[in-house]
Amino acid sequence: MNRTIDWDGDAVVIIDQTRLPHEERVLRLREVAELAEAIQLLRVRGAPALGVAGALGIALAVRRAQENGTDIRIAADRAAGQLAATRPTAVNLRWGIDKALGALGAGADGVVERAIAVLEADINTNRAMAERGATWVESLRAAHGHRLRILTHCNTGALACVEIGTALGVIQVAHARGVVEEVLATETRPSLQGSRLTAWELLRLGIPFRLVADAAAPSLIASGDVDLVMVGADRIAANGDVANKIGTYPLALALNPAFDVTPADLITAIITEDRVIAPAAHPLTSSSVNG
Amino acid sequence: MNRTIDWDGDAVVIIDQTRLPHEERVLRLREVAELAEAIQLLRVRGAPALGVAGALGIALAVRRAQENGTDIRIAADRAAGQLAATRPTAVNLRWGIDKALGALGAGADGVVERAIAVLEADINTNRAMAERGATWVESLRAAHGHRLRILTHCNTGALACVEIGTALGVIQVAHARGVVEEVLATETRPSLQGSRLTAWELLRLGIPFRLVADAAAPSLIASGDVDLVMVGADRIAANGDVANKIGTYPLALALNPAFDVTPADLITAIITEDRVIAPAAHPLTSSSVNG
Repeated sequence: MNRTIDWDGDAVVIIDQTRLPHEERVLRLREVAELAEAIQLLRVRGAPALGVAGALGIALAVRRAQENGTDIRIAADRAAGQLAATRPTAVNLRWGIDKALGALGAGADGVVERAIAVLEADINTNRAMAERGATWVESLRAAHGHRLRILTHCNTGALACVEIGTALGVIQVAHARGVVEEVLATETRPSLQGSRLTAWELLRLGIPFRLVADAAAPSLIASGDVDLVMVGADRIAANGDVANKIGTYPLALALNPAFDVTPADLITAIITEDRVIAPAAHPLTSSSVNG
Repeated sequence: MNRTIDWDGDAVVIIDQTRLPHEERVLRLREVAELAEAIQLLRVRGAPALGVAGALGIALAVRRAQENGTDIRIAADRAAGQLAATRPTAVNLRWGIDKALGALGAGADGVVERAIAVLEADINTNRAMAERGATWVESLRAAHGHRLRILTHCNTGALACVEIGTALGVIQVAHARGVVEEVLATETRPSLQGSRLTAWELLRLGIPFRLVADAAAPSLIASGDVDLVMVGADRIAANGDVANKIGTYPLALALNPAFDVTPADLITAIITEDRVIAPAAHPLTSSSVNG
C-alpha cells in the first residue's frame, strides 16, 4: 500500500497505524461508523490525513445514502456530526468535512469528486513543499560544509498524510538529494509515534536514523550532535508561533548549542547536607563539593 | 521493608527495584557475585544507594573470606574489581568501595563496621538535608502565598538511597509540613524510574501526584503549572553546573514562565506549500496562513 488513506471507488482504505510497526494491516471501511471508530482509535491520525479522512467520510455517507435511496443531505449532516465528534480538537478533520459538505449542491458524485480532490491536493501540496524545503536544506548543507544531522519529533511522514509527509517529506527529498547524514527521531511519548511510525517509515525509505528518548533531545542539540531540527506544525499563529506535538518547545529552547550540563544560572538553589547555596550569587568553591 | 538496602548481620538485603511497582520482592544476597549481578541489572540503583552497595559488597567479601579462612585482603581486592566493573560510570559505587577498603587495617570486623557507618551516614545526611531543604521550600511557599506544585524528574527517593531520599526526601518533609499542593513526576524514559519508582513511593507516602511525559514538562512549566522544579544531582561542578539524569536540562531551560507555544524567534524557517518564511525577519500576515 502506497497511500496511508485512499478511496477505492466505493470505500475508504487505510493502513491501521495502531498495528505498526509489527503488522501492515489494511482496512477497507464502507460505513461512516467504521471510519469514525478508526479515527477515534488513532488507526488513522496526523493532521493532513485527518483532513482527507473528514472529506472521504462525507463521500462514504452520500454513497451509502445513494445506494439506499435516502436523502444525501441528511446522511451528510449526520456523518459530519459523527466524524467531527471523534476528535473535537482536530482542526483539519473539521476542515475536510466542510470541504466535502460544500459540494453537496453538485449531488453525491460532486461530493465524492470533491473528497478525491482534497486527497489529491494533499499529495500535490506536500510534494511541492518537500521539494521547496529540500532546496532550503541544501542551502543549509552548503553553509555547514557537511551533510546534515536532522532531528525530528513525532510523525510527520506519509503516515500523517496521504502519500508524502510534511517535515519528513522534506527530509525524504533532502536525503534523495544526498544532503542528509542521519536522522535522529524522538520516541514521542506517550503514544510513541516516533518509535512506532517514524522509525518504520525511515527504515522503509532507507534513511539512516537513530531513535532517541524525548528528554535526551535537548542535550543532543546542546552538545552539537544536531545540525537542524525539523518538525511539523498543527497550527501556526500569525506572528509565527507554532503549536505542535508536546515536546517541540524544549527542542526550540535548546537550539543554541552552548551547554552540555544544566548551567548554574538556571538553578535557583543547591541544597546540600550542610547548606543551601544559590549558585549565581555564591559560586561553589571546590572544597565545598568534596567530602 | 523500610530500607532500600540493608545489612542483616551476615548478608545484604535489597528490594528488587526491577519488580516495582508490581511486586515488592526482597532479595537476600550472601555472595559478592549476587550483589554485582543485582547492581548490573538495576535491582539496586540510585547514586547514594550504590555508594552503600559498594561498601556493603566489600563487607560481604571479607565476611565470606573470614568464614572460609581465606585472606580478607585478597577477597576485598577481588570484590572491589568485580563490583566497580558493574557500572563503571557510577562514581558513588567506587567511593563506597574505597571507603570500606580503607578499613582493612582493622580486620574483617572493622570493614563491616565501616560499611554500616556508610549506610547510616546516608540516612543521617539525607534526613538533615531533607529538613533543611523543606525549610527552604517553606520560605518559597510563603513567597508564593499558596501551597507549591513541585515537579521532579527521575527517582531521588528512598529507593535511590537507604531510608530517605534526596530531592524526594525534601519533598516528603515539605509535604509533612503542609506546604506541598501536588507533585508532578516525569516518566523518565527510557527506564521509567519516574513512573515505576517515584510514583510508587509517592503513593505509599500519601503525597498527591500526577505523572507526566518527559516532553510535556517544559510546557507545563512555561504555562505556569509548576511552582518549583526539584531534582537530584549525580555530580555538581565547582561553578554550580549540575550533571543529572537526561532530561534535567530542558526543565531548567523552561524555568522562565513566558511561553506556551514554540515562539517564532526560536524558529529558523517555516516551510509552507508556497514559500519559505523566516519568522523573525518576516512576520506572517494572517492571509498567508489561510488557504
